[in-house]
Amino acid sequence: MNEFELIARLTKSLPTNHTVMVGAGDDCAVLDLGVAEKLILFKTDAVVEGVHFTRETPPEKVGRKALARCLSDIAAMAGTPTAALVTIALPENFDAEFIAKIYDGLNALAQEFGVAIVGGETTTNPERILISIALLGTVSRGKQFLRNGAKVGDAIFVTGELGGSLAGKHLDFEPRLAEARWLAEHFPIHALMDLSDGLAGDLRHILRASGVGAEILKTAVPIARAAKLRARENSAAKPPLIAALSDGEDFELLFTIASSDAVKLLDGWKKQFPKLKLSCVGKIVAGDGVVLRDRMGAYQLNTNGYAHFADN
Amino acid sequence: MNEFELIARLTKSLPTNHTVMVGAGDDCAVLDLGVAEKLILFKTDAVVEGVHFTRETPPEKVGRKALARCLSDIAAMAGTPTAALVTIALPENFDAEFIAKIYDGLNALAQEFGVAIVGGETTTNPERILISIALLGTVSRGKQFLRNGAKVGDAIFVTGELGGSLAGKHLDFEPRLAEARWLAEHFPIHALMDLSDGLAGDLRHILRASGVGAEILKTAVPIARAAKLRARENSAAKPPLIAALSDGEDFELLFTIASSDAVKLLDGWKKQFPKLKLSCVGKIVAGDGVVLRDRMGAYQLNTNGYAHFADN
Repeated sequence: MNEFELIARLTKSLPTNHTVMVGAGDDCAVLDLGVAEKLILFKTDAVVEGVHFTRETPPEKVGRKALARCLSDIAAMAGTPTAALVTIALPENFDAEFIAKIYDGLNALAQEFGVAIVGGETTTNPERILISIALLGTVSRGKQFLRNGAKVGDAIFVTGELGGSLAGKHLDFEPRLAEARWLAEHFPIHALMDLSDGLAGDLRHILRASGVGAEILKTAVPIARAAKLRARENSAAKPPLIAALSDGEDFELLFTIASSDAVKLLDGWKKQFPKLKLSCVGKIVAGDGVVLRDRMGAYQLNTNGYAHFADN
Repeated sequence: MNEFELIARLTKSLPTNHTVMVGAGDDCAVLDLGVAEKLILFKTDAVVEGVHFTRETPPEKVGRKALARCLSDIAAMAGTPTAALVTIALPENFDAEFIAKIYDGLNALAQEFGVAIVGGETTTNPERILISIALLGTVSRGKQFLRNGAKVGDAIFVTGELGGSLAGKHLDFEPRLAEARWLAEHFPIHALMDLSDGLAGDLRHILRASGVGAEILKTAVPIARAAKLRARENSAAKPPLIAALSDGEDFELLFTIASSDAVKLLDGWKKQFPKLKLSCVGKIVAGDGVVLRDRMGAYQLNTNGYAHFADN
């Protein structure tokens, strides 16, 4: 049993109650706790030394990243973060200065986004540092955008550029909170999520939840300059397009909207967020899976970003 | 810098916002998210293999314990738990059956207390299993009982018996949720918390938060039969009174109430919870620290449960 099979088994029949609007399987859980105009968003995310950061990572960036990942999930629901608890598991001979700086980075980002740090705990993990963030947020009722609303004919959009995470963006990314709220307020978004595992893989979550397929236009994928540089400097690095399609930790927004709204959206976006690229990368189609299209033809895209000829 | 000094440093100036009623330092954070008659309780707690359980612990009990610890914190606020997220960090060669049974135990307890499991994540921790629970709850406005309300003259009460955790209770304890809510509904409790680190240590949290001291009557401490048995069978084990005062993981309620309410409380309790002992173990006094009193005199009590003669 691998991790995905285990998760499928563990989430098969979870206890629920009348407060649960959305349980396991979307970017955040959504709860109705009786706030007049709002629903509650609830999310946890962990970073582990040796997996998500190393002892060589600047500690402020470790703390920043730990919280930013959770903030990105609130953004993926067009929500507003409210309060976080910080669990930090420490080896016995921890470097107090390193830990204090982790909190400095985390607290600075919390301050920037108006998030209260309301406690948490330190516990023991003898071999490595592990940080788990639990985050609460709110979203206006009816404005929580899930993964399951994509419709055939929708245009597929991504913010920013993809494939730059390994070059450092995974420590510096901006959670797209303001952008997602603006989208939710001004446009009838159909499906929304954040990119944590790469476009080729994450798009499938929307497709599966919505019962549709997608066609991505090769030339429309916004490739980060860092991914191009990396490929040029290191022949063993992924080709830039593959990096843009499959590298994790982009933490950009991925969403679909009726294609009739696409031009208006692009116009409005340019005025509102002139510095952040918004790209229409393809469209939702009937069927399932992801097809990559270029002038030569159509290719089935796998989650690693690699494509092979498709019969269509 | 030890763990306590680190925590003091880390929690010195945390980012906050207008939703925060109680931040770091009490059993749960308390948030006002605009629910008409309720406040939101927010808590995380982690258990770590080799620290809180071993590979030999029945996995169902590991899962049960992970959630029960958090539930006890909601009880310590006289709250009602609503929804939990489960983070589980796994070594690469995890035993899927063991993990599935951890969830079985956790889900069964969640079901028992009406708690929805609304997601979470699996992540990697190469050397050992770590489970972190994030729990949301609610409490009626004005009925959230903190640690800072103890007054000179108050009677000090504990539920159940103390010192039995090592003999197995740490895997089987019942979170005192119904008991705490009944107390909150019927009596003007002054200070309330749950016992996780032992009476001698935890009482100090109430004393410090309230600016008072306490006197504990030696013969009034309800010692668990398991602690007595353990001491009888193993000469290296703690004397039973010391175990009752200092062993962690009792997860009973500790609270103070005006002594004029004590008799009425004991009468009401006996009718409501005939199977669960409620003991008045002492009183709140002016000053600070904890004094243990017996027929021979008064002793200063340290957090390990050991006492030495006091000048008074």
